[in-house]
Amino acid sequence: MSAHIGVTGLAVMGANLARNLARNGYTVALHNRSVARTDALLQAHGGDGDFVRTETLTELVESLERPRRVLIMVQAGAPVDSVIADLVPLLDEGDIIIDGGNSFYEETRRREESLRAKNLHFVGVGVSGGEEGALNGPSIMPGGSKESYDTLGPMLEKISAKYNGEPCCAWIDTDGAGHYVKMVHNGIEYADMQVIGEAFDLMRSLAGIEPREQAGVFREWNTTDLASYLIEITAEVLEQEDEVTGRPLVDVVVDSAGQKGTGRWTAISGLEVGSPVTAIAESVFARSISSQRELRAVTNATFSAGIDETLSATEKYGSAEDRQDFVEDVRKALYASKLVAYAQGLDMLVAAGEEFGWDLDLKAIASLWRAGCIIRADLLDTIMKAYDAPKDQQPKNLLLAPEFNEAINECLPAWRRVVAAAATYGVPAPVFSSSLSYYDSLRRDRLPAALTQGLRDYFGAHTYKRVDKEGTFHTQWSGDRSEIDA
Amino acid sequence: MSAHIGVTGLAVMGANLARNLARNGYTVALHNRSVARTDALLQAHGGDGDFVRTETLTELVESLERPRRVLIMVQAGAPVDSVIADLVPLLDEGDIIIDGGNSFYEETRRREESLRAKNLHFVGVGVSGGEEGALNGPSIMPGGSKESYDTLGPMLEKISAKYNGEPCCAWIDTDGAGHYVKMVHNGIEYADMQVIGEAFDLMRSLAGIEPREQAGVFREWNTTDLASYLIEITAEVLEQEDEVTGRPLVDVVVDSAGQKGTGRWTAISGLEVGSPVTAIAESVFARSISSQRELRAVTNATFSAGIDETLSATEKYGSAEDRQDFVEDVRKALYASKLVAYAQGLDMLVAAGEEFGWDLDLKAIASLWRAGCIIRADLLDTIMKAYDAPKDQQPKNLLLAPEFNEAINECLPAWRRVVAAAATYGVPAPVFSSSLSYYDSLRRDRLPAALTQGLRDYFGAHTYKRVDKEGTFHTQWSGDRSEIDA
Repeated sequence: MSAHIGVTGLAVMGANLARNLARNGYTVALHNRSVARTDALLQAHGGDGDFVRTETLTELVESLERPRRVLIMVQAGAPVDSVIADLVPLLDEGDIIIDGGNSFYEETRRREESLRAKNLHFVGVGVSGGEEGALNGPSIMPGGSKESYDTLGPMLEKISAKYNGEPCCAWIDTDGAGHYVKMVHNGIEYADMQVIGEAFDLMRSLAGIEPREQAGVFREWNTTDLASYLIEITAEVLEQEDEVTGRPLVDVVVDSAGQKGTGRWTAISGLEVGSPVTAIAESVFARSISSQRELRAVTNATFSAGIDETLSATEKYGSAEDRQDFVEDVRKALYASKLVAYAQGLDMLVAAGEEFGWDLDLKAIASLWRAGCIIRADLLDTIMKAYDAPKDQQPKNLLLAPEFNEAINECLPAWRRVVAAAATYGVPAPVFSSSLSYYDSLRRDRLPAALTQGLRDYFGAHTYKRVDKEGTFHTQWSGDRSEIDA
Repeated sequence: MSAHIGVTGLAVMGANLARNLARNGYTVALHNRSVARTDALLQAHGGDGDFVRTETLTELVESLERPRRVLIMVQAGAPVDSVIADLVPLLDEGDIIIDGGNSFYEETRRREESLRAKNLHFVGVGVSGGEEGALNGPSIMPGGSKESYDTLGPMLEKISAKYNGEPCCAWIDTDGAGHYVKMVHNGIEYADMQVIGEAFDLMRSLAGIEPREQAGVFREWNTTDLASYLIEITAEVLEQEDEVTGRPLVDVVVDSAGQKGTGRWTAISGLEVGSPVTAIAESVFARSISSQRELRAVTNATFSAGIDETLSATEKYGSAEDRQDFVEDVRKALYASKLVAYAQGLDMLVAAGEEFGWDLDLKAIASLWRAGCIIRADLLDTIMKAYDAPKDQQPKNLLLAPEFNEAINECLPAWRRVVAAAATYGVPAPVFSSSLSYYDSLRRDRLPAALTQGLRDYFGAHTYKRVDKEGTFHTQWSGDRSEIDA
């Protein structure tokens, strides 16, 4: 019996995808550098479906039906190149190598180009949902050639998460498009978590609402526009009591978050394609700051607040009714900031599409994120509706879609109050405030960039354009200050 | 007669550096791809000093004393590699190739490594000050080997800008260190201009102070801690009347600023070395947003303000006295935000030093920026004093230096009021508010990153650390929720 697909690399993500494939009726050939891991998988979960045990890559390849499909599930980076190098001599024209790891899209582009020259398909696939998703249905974002998707797509769709029966898997576009979209998903995830953190900090610092009580607040919020997996599990985490100290778990966890991965890549790519992803970048920076523990120990002891810190929450927010109003304000600020993060992430996809020659379908991409992945949220269904039109009739920015424009209008006064309160009382809310600045920048008729242009013309003769006529101009600043065509 | 140095590439920067060298007593051999440009330079400015006219690179090299010094002044990128390739066969061991353009530091590192293998010195030199600086004394930031600086340094110091007689030129460190420091200088310059723009916009939008009146405000500010070249020329630009319309020039200039260069590189490198350069990144993004003209036309017409826009400046800021107070508040917010931008830029240099193996002397670097360059400011003298100590006794962050800590304390209440007003009245102030968030993040004892860690442990088993004991932990969220060592 020939296997439908081979999986090499059987750490938890690889093992779970293999089991997911087998459970869905596919015969899966298994390979791992150490055979012990293959055997352990077969022993524990061999009953999940039809597996073919192999000890070498040659055996793996020989066990597959054609065109062969080999899914590589090893650590991103050099190990992927190493497995590809071993595989290539064993494969034939038209076979498909699939990389299901968190590879950097530029590497996927490079690999796809090099394998295409050898008449092999290389498909970089973004897989989101962690171990649980890999086993029970992840969100799947495949790149690579359209042709490879004809044979590979049905399998991926079958094992993917479903939202109202629709698979959370669709071909994104060529070469690195799948890994790129997965990267932006993770960038949005960074922002999503950061705005939840800002809401938590504001409600606790300014209204004195402790973690256990906040669990209830987030649970309630999960019945509003905010309904999402991350809001849901925030309630779970905030409710968790530390068994050692009896304190809320969140108070005994070290408050430093790493940022070496895909969030950072997203912010960098946003800068490279000229897309203002302020919410994602500020989220990455917030993690950097949180990790500067040595510096923070000193600044914490030295920096003053410049506010009356003796004010209690009740003095700041008065009655229980005020407190209730503040919580609702924070909810709206969170929702508006989250919309900005999504709007920026989607704008970035459009800019990247222009840069890399991808025709990205924002509606389809939003659909993939509705189940299986970390940022799954009711919101994504509304985002799909916003882009449910021919491309030239789609909104130029998510916030221009009527439903979201209206949502922002409803949130705006609260959003302003919360950002002002954060500044006034010294609670850092970098994404709430940066997102509001972004909105206001897009909203205003004139920006002070005109002054920047004037300064650049003054010190560097960089020239400027005029609002009232075509052309490029320069003021002779060190001369008689008359204007010339440049 | 042998020339002391050769210059190839005689566009305005190359020509002006050549003239500067000649005026300082050096014999300068000149070369340009088209000889006409060489002749034009000689005809117009041959009297500046001793020049040697050459028509080919071979002639240029033959005209030089040894070790030969060849300054390349061509467009950054491929042209630099092309000139290097032509030069290499003509040079001998120990000769020095100098790149005085705005090259990307990674390219400088690559070129230096490749030429070192050929026993040639390659010196990437950051030159700031534009045409004017090149001619009369720029700020000069040379990298490359220490050995090359022994013979090259005295010449560069002689032609550099002087601050109280001290040259604004010193060896930075090996390979790309000079271009790196120049890049960060430009990143700070982006932030410096952005905060000026935010101050301008706030004073105009909220206190109704028109450009011409603001010229006076900036002129007055130039007598305070803010005294700097950019504040000085802001007054000049704001005062400028457009000769066509009679309106302030700043109102007829298109309000879109480009960001394809060094500012973007700085923000990207900050992300890469894990340094939170929020002020620089927000400045780059502010330029991106300003350039999205097509989108802005739509958002401007669609986005609502969510505030009572019929309020006049007087209604917002009441009496002339209130208005005066607001102007002083804005000055303080600008100064505090500017200090944050410098603190972040210097922190980034330290992080980059660790990454690339450079031992960067922040005091020396600040000294180079005191004259000749765009960000020259009285402030830099104070920054030098802050770092006037052995490395282990220097402040871990600029804002921890007593003089700056005190300055921030003085600015803090005003800074908070201005950021709150910007949010309340819808004036985008991304760097004012992001800088305040940065300060508050460093100031606070606990950050919501602890919640982020809890969420990451929940959905991805990423584990966390505890504040009360060593180790790495995981809560079994899908099990009995007990904690295990991970």
